[in-house]
Amino acid sequence: MSNYHPLTEQEAITLAQTHVPLLQQATSLTCREIGDGNLNLVFHIQDTDTSNSVIVKQALPYAKVVGESWPLTLDRARIESEALRIQGELCPELVPAVYQYLPELAVTMMEDLSDHVIMRSGLIAGNQYPYFAAHISEFLARTLFFTSDLGINQQEKKIQQGSFINPELCKITEDLIFDDPYTDSPNNQYNPAIQDVVDELRSDEELHLQVAKLRHQFLTHSQALLHGDLHTGSVFVTKQSTKVIDPEFAFYGPMGFDIGAVIANLLLNYAGQLGWMEEDQKRQAFQQYLLHTIQEIWTQFESKFRQLWKEHGVDRISAQPSFQDAYLTALLQDTLGFAGCKMVRRIVGLAHVADIDTIKQPELKEQAERLAIRIGTTLIKEHDRFHHIEQLMDKVQQLHAESL
Amino acid sequence: MSNYHPLTEQEAITLAQTHVPLLQQATSLTCREIGDGNLNLVFHIQDTDTSNSVIVKQALPYAKVVGESWPLTLDRARIESEALRIQGELCPELVPAVYQYLPELAVTMMEDLSDHVIMRSGLIAGNQYPYFAAHISEFLARTLFFTSDLGINQQEKKIQQGSFINPELCKITEDLIFDDPYTDSPNNQYNPAIQDVVDELRSDEELHLQVAKLRHQFLTHSQALLHGDLHTGSVFVTKQSTKVIDPEFAFYGPMGFDIGAVIANLLLNYAGQLGWMEEDQKRQAFQQYLLHTIQEIWTQFESKFRQLWKEHGVDRISAQPSFQDAYLTALLQDTLGFAGCKMVRRIVGLAHVADIDTIKQPELKEQAERLAIRIGTTLIKEHDRFHHIEQLMDKVQQLHAESL
Repeated sequence: MSNYHPLTEQEAITLAQTHVPLLQQATSLTCREIGDGNLNLVFHIQDTDTSNSVIVKQALPYAKVVGESWPLTLDRARIESEALRIQGELCPELVPAVYQYLPELAVTMMEDLSDHVIMRSGLIAGNQYPYFAAHISEFLARTLFFTSDLGINQQEKKIQQGSFINPELCKITEDLIFDDPYTDSPNNQYNPAIQDVVDELRSDEELHLQVAKLRHQFLTHSQALLHGDLHTGSVFVTKQSTKVIDPEFAFYGPMGFDIGAVIANLLLNYAGQLGWMEEDQKRQAFQQYLLHTIQEIWTQFESKFRQLWKEHGVDRISAQPSFQDAYLTALLQDTLGFAGCKMVRRIVGLAHVADIDTIKQPELKEQAERLAIRIGTTLIKEHDRFHHIEQLMDKVQQLHAESL
Repeated sequence: MSNYHPLTEQEAITLAQTHVPLLQQATSLTCREIGDGNLNLVFHIQDTDTSNSVIVKQALPYAKVVGESWPLTLDRARIESEALRIQGELCPELVPAVYQYLPELAVTMMEDLSDHVIMRSGLIAGNQYPYFAAHISEFLARTLFFTSDLGINQQEKKIQQGSFINPELCKITEDLIFDDPYTDSPNNQYNPAIQDVVDELRSDEELHLQVAKLRHQFLTHSQALLHGDLHTGSVFVTKQSTKVIDPEFAFYGPMGFDIGAVIANLLLNYAGQLGWMEEDQKRQAFQQYLLHTIQEIWTQFESKFRQLWKEHGVDRISAQPSFQDAYLTALLQDTLGFAGCKMVRRIVGLAHVADIDTIKQPELKEQAERLAIRIGTTLIKEHDRFHHIEQLMDKVQQLHAESL
């Protein structure tokens, strides 16, 4: 890493021109740094003549969160580019194309997605994405199946697992998702108005048992290569297109953690709509759209996953229908448990979501927070009791009704 | 590996003298190759003046089993020496000391244990080992606890896991233990007299479901650094001493696989005694000794493991008593499921055990085989129903009584 240094805009332009064929003939390139500066530099480089553009992303050797700064491995750039490459082979339409990875500079050059918006912002604005369930279920089914022992040579999988050992970024998840929210940690941030809920999170022993089990799964269940941070801020969308970005948390872990992340973030938006859509009918319709999307994501995921298993399963033993049924039931339960953990941390831990945090009216924000925590803790405590995705729809509606 | 070649006896002497302080002054060294020649060369080198001795073990680049030969990675010598080093730090009294590891030659020089006997042979001869339960439970508790997320920094564990990726040797286990016995595989070998039992193994769908679940655990549950092949042929004993050898199958897997291997091999000996001890009373007493040993192994393991957790647990979340109880119950169930798989493969798959295979009287051999399969399949199918080790004692005695 001796040549590593944070790039200037001019250096980013030179690298892009050198390594990206699309820009090699360009005579007039502009560059804007558009990252939030917390973890990475993100340069948007454009040819003003042709409008061709590219993203140059560079990992920084530290993380800045709420003013704090701590060192963070540059190896995550390798992990991100390698994960994007694998996902790109499995779902070329659903991730940005990678043009080049430069290990010494921790730089990845990739497709510019400026014509897309961050899904979280789109949902907050009340936009619907009719293809999202189809796209994300395809992404989940293919990336999880084909990196698991079900769909890849089981010896190759072990070697691949070895190249995705990602201790530092896993540590962030282990602490922020599976520990801090349940204790008095200095990392936590929350609305003082919900102190009663926070106290309950810290004292509920049945909740702690289930969090401990889910945490143990996260630590030990090397089921598939995960994206590792699949919230709606890691998804770029248009009405027609879905692109999953930023897999720097990628590692071999439990499949349900990725599926649960998607569901949790849709449910957080569901709760957040209490503060965004004033008109009851409109809000209810949008919440129904969100629930329907969740149901479709699981249903389509399950159907695609079973189809892949049928067509591409690599071993005899796992081909038994009874095993596949048991596998998918366990996966649904994991998914809902992890979804619950992901919801709770976004309300009381470090790093909240705009869906709820930027609600202006304090009483609506509090109401949304309480509903999110209520759904989250219920999923954590009861995840083992779910056998069909429809039960989730019913449960969310019941909890919502009770909270009114 | 360019300098790799199989050693001659003279080369082994020279290496030992160069690298082992104990032999540096020796003027009269003798050498005997004592390996079985299937996987490794094993040189026993002795100073005839002082009787000081050492083992020089060299991995061969192939495996020979029943005349077949297939290439096998020399990296297993690194894995074995590294596993011995870790085990040696955790339980110095319970593994051979490693003097030197030479990666280019895939050679490990280690403590000579010629004053010990292979435990399997000792048990066949009807010998009892009063300290074995205490020793092996100590080995299991310490090696499994301190390499798991419970007892080691969880980031260090991930890195360690990466250096124990062991695809080729895991593949042997995946095929021979979790696949072949349940299908018509050319690898299988069995007594034609038990064809009815073999047919049942191939057609029992409930059995296949449970084997698939256990296989999936073996493939994905990265719980602790396992020995990976902990049968009674990997244990050297005297009345007072126990030494665990040959961890070349070491990898990060489910703890129950190691504990189950020990229990399975004691149960195989239990069944085998039908052919060894003619006198009923003597045989029953020895079988009681074996059952008592199994019970002691689990009981002492659990108690030591809980004590380590209490004193050396690395995280807050897993310290909850309810989680510890759930963890140990799941571990007992895994243990018995894996024990069942290990028993079945030793009767119908490749590589049997002398405890049963060398019984001279055909009808007693068959009887022992049927009992072993009966216990094995019951453990596989019912492993989820065990909550106390005493239930295993009862179950074995019940199955034994039913088989008379």
